[in-house]
Parts: sequence; structure tokens; C-alpha cells
Amino acid sequence: MGTRDGGYASGRLRREQIVTAATELFSRVGYRHATVLELAQAAGISRTGLLHHFGSKEALLEAVLQRRDAEDAARFDLAAGDQTGLTALAALVELASYNASRPQLVALFAVLSAEASDPDHPAHDYFVQRYRRTVDTVRRSLTRAGEAGLLAPRVEPTRQARAIVALMDGLQVQWLLSPGDVDMADEIRRQVQQLLTVPLPTGP
Amino acid sequence: MGTRDGGYASGRLRREQIVTAATELFSRVGYRHATVLELAQAAGISRTGLLHHFGSKEALLEAVLQRRDAEDAARFDLAAGDQTGLTALAALVELASYNASRPQLVALFAVLSAEASDPDHPAHDYFVQRYRRTVDTVRRSLTRAGEAGLLAPRVEPTRQARAIVALMDGLQVQWLLSPGDVDMADEIRRQVQQLLTVPLPTGP
Repeated sequence: MGTRDGGYASGRLRREQIVTAATELFSRVGYRHATVLELAQAAGISRTGLLHHFGSKEALLEAVLQRRDAEDAARFDLAAGDQTGLTALAALVELASYNASRPQLVALFAVLSAEASDPDHPAHDYFVQRYRRTVDTVRRSLTRAGEAGLLAPRVEPTRQARAIVALMDGLQVQWLLSPGDVDMADEIRRQVQQLLTVPLPTGP
Repeated sequence: MGTRDGGYASGRLRREQIVTAATELFSRVGYRHATVLELAQAAGISRTGLLHHFGSKEALLEAVLQRRDAEDAARFDLAAGDQTGLTALAALVELASYNASRPQLVALFAVLSAEASDPDHPAHDYFVQRYRRTVDTVRRSLTRAGEAGLLAPRVEPTRQARAIVALMDGLQVQWLLSPGDVDMADEIRRQVQQLLTVPLPTGP
């Protein structure tokens, strides 16, 4: 029992190490350009060892995407009990601020989301669903703010949700190219603030 | 002389054909993934023939980027004599509308601009300069609109120029993934309109 638990724990740890190494390599050379052999070398294991844990490069990509989503979801869970939507909107600003600390992962998602517009790309369905879900989350927060009487006149939640998500993506591209020219969190805060009649909360 | 002119003209035509084929291939498989041999095959010539016209894959990429910029610059030249900035702002809406007719090129630029955040990427400097120039063009148009008294209260040209460019990029990603969910031109028109106190002109 102790041995089995130990084996399970060490297998899980090994998987986490592989996902970390794959995130770094995908970020640096792009998903399509990374080979299974390079991914294995980056994780310090054999090609066979990597394929034992993840059956294919696609499966490893899926694990990389899922880990980021799990991390980001944990940030938004804090906003779950939020009846006015303001905590969730403030979490967008926090997310932009956190993203500024992980340029490689931001670059990976920017490349992948564009590559994945090809319906044959293994992450196509993932990104289609991810954007629908993200836009819908922001739309619900804006709708709640509207129900609480906190939205500025003529703000349409569905349209603005799409625009805020687009703004975050587009600012990332400008920031990746010229980090010194763009303060992503500050820009998002100001744009979201313009939609509201009350100050956006600060801090997590 | 006639022969030399004919040779020059056919060489130029051949270069244009290669750039067209390269644009299509880069759009489909990405810049990094396309090989010189595949680019030659797509253009219907030999590898040696391609390298005679373009010395390297980087040189061919540069030609692809320059052609798009030349096409887009021609659209904005119409707005050069525009003292209020409104014609140039309306041209952004037209550009979004035109982009909806060329998803492959839009996808290519989305992938490349993200890949190029790596300082070692051959298009890094190109994209850094391109964004600075684009944001500056929009900023000047907004500033002119402000001088003509046509800007809504509290609109800051520099900040909003960056936001509009970001919005266009981010909407492209959402549109590439789910074309039926997003009307890029309509979204840009509404967002730009919110910055103005007069109706944005329609049509070119």
C-alpha cells in the first residue's frame, strides 16, 4: 500500500515535471516545431518514458492547456460568491497583472490560439470552447453588475464581454513585442472601469 | 532592350507568383514549419529557382509582409488629406471588413506576430516597428478628431489608439476560431463610434 502510494505519487510528480518542461519548450519553439524527442530531453527522460506518461504530443499539449486553465480557474473561484460581478471583473485585472510575470506562457497561448484556427489543429476545439466559456464568464459578470445598477449607460454585456476578452489578447501581443510600452493590467483596469458607475475593487 | 524589358517583367511576375504561393503556405502551416523545398513546390519551381529570386526563407517572409503592408497602406492613403481624422478611423472599419475576406492572411499575421515576440525570430524587429507605426497612425487620427472637437469627453488618444489596435487583433483571434460568432467590422465600428461625438462616415 505504502509502495503503491509512493509509486502513484512519484508518477504524478514525474507527469507534473514533464508538463512543466513541455510548457517551457512549447513556449520557446512553438507546439508544431517541438518533437517528442526534444520534449523528452527537456524533461530529462527517454522518448519511451515520455510516451509511457503521455501517449502523444497532442496528449501532452492537452495537459499543458489544462494546467493553465486549472491555475486560472482557481483565481476566479474566489469570485464565485460575488453577486455584483465586480470581484470577477477585478479578477481580470489581476489576471493581466499575473500574466505579465509569465511571458513565455502568454506567448505560447498567443501562438497556439492563432494556429488552432485551422480546424485540423489538435487544439482547435479546445480554443473554440475556451473562448466561448471565457466570453460567457465575463458576460455574466457584466450582467450581474447591470442587475445591481452598477453599469454605465448603454453598456451591452454580450458585446462588451467579447471586446474585453479581445482587448486582453491584443494587448498581450503588443506587450510581448514591446514590454516597456504596455502596462496590461493598467489598460484593462481603465477600460473595465469605463463600463462601471462605481470604482472597481483593487487587490485579490 | 525589348528582350531585357520582357525578362525583367517576367522575373517580376515570377516573384509575385512566389510571394502569393508563400503567403498561402505560410498561412496554412506557419512560417517556421514551411521548408524552402515546400515553398518552391507550392510556387511550381525548383528549390534553386526559388533561391535565385529570394536568397532565403527570411527574405521571402519579408516580401510577404511587405506586400500586405503595401496593400494596406494604399487603403490608408485615401485618408491622407483628412483633417478631422474621421476618414482614417472609418478606414479601420473598412480594413476589418476586408480582413474578413482573407482569413488565411489574418491567421498568418496572428501566428507570426506572436511567434515574433521571440527576439531571435527573423520578423521580430518588423513587428515591433509595425505595431509602433500602427498605434501611432491611430493616435494621430484621434488627436486630429480631438482638435476638431469631435472626441467624446475623457478620450485619451494614445491610450485609445493602443486599445483599438488591440481590439482589432483580439477580435481576429475570436473570429478565426468561430467566424459565425463575430462580426469584426461591426464591433470595431461600434467601439470607435463610442469615442466620437459625430457619426463615423460609412463606405470608402
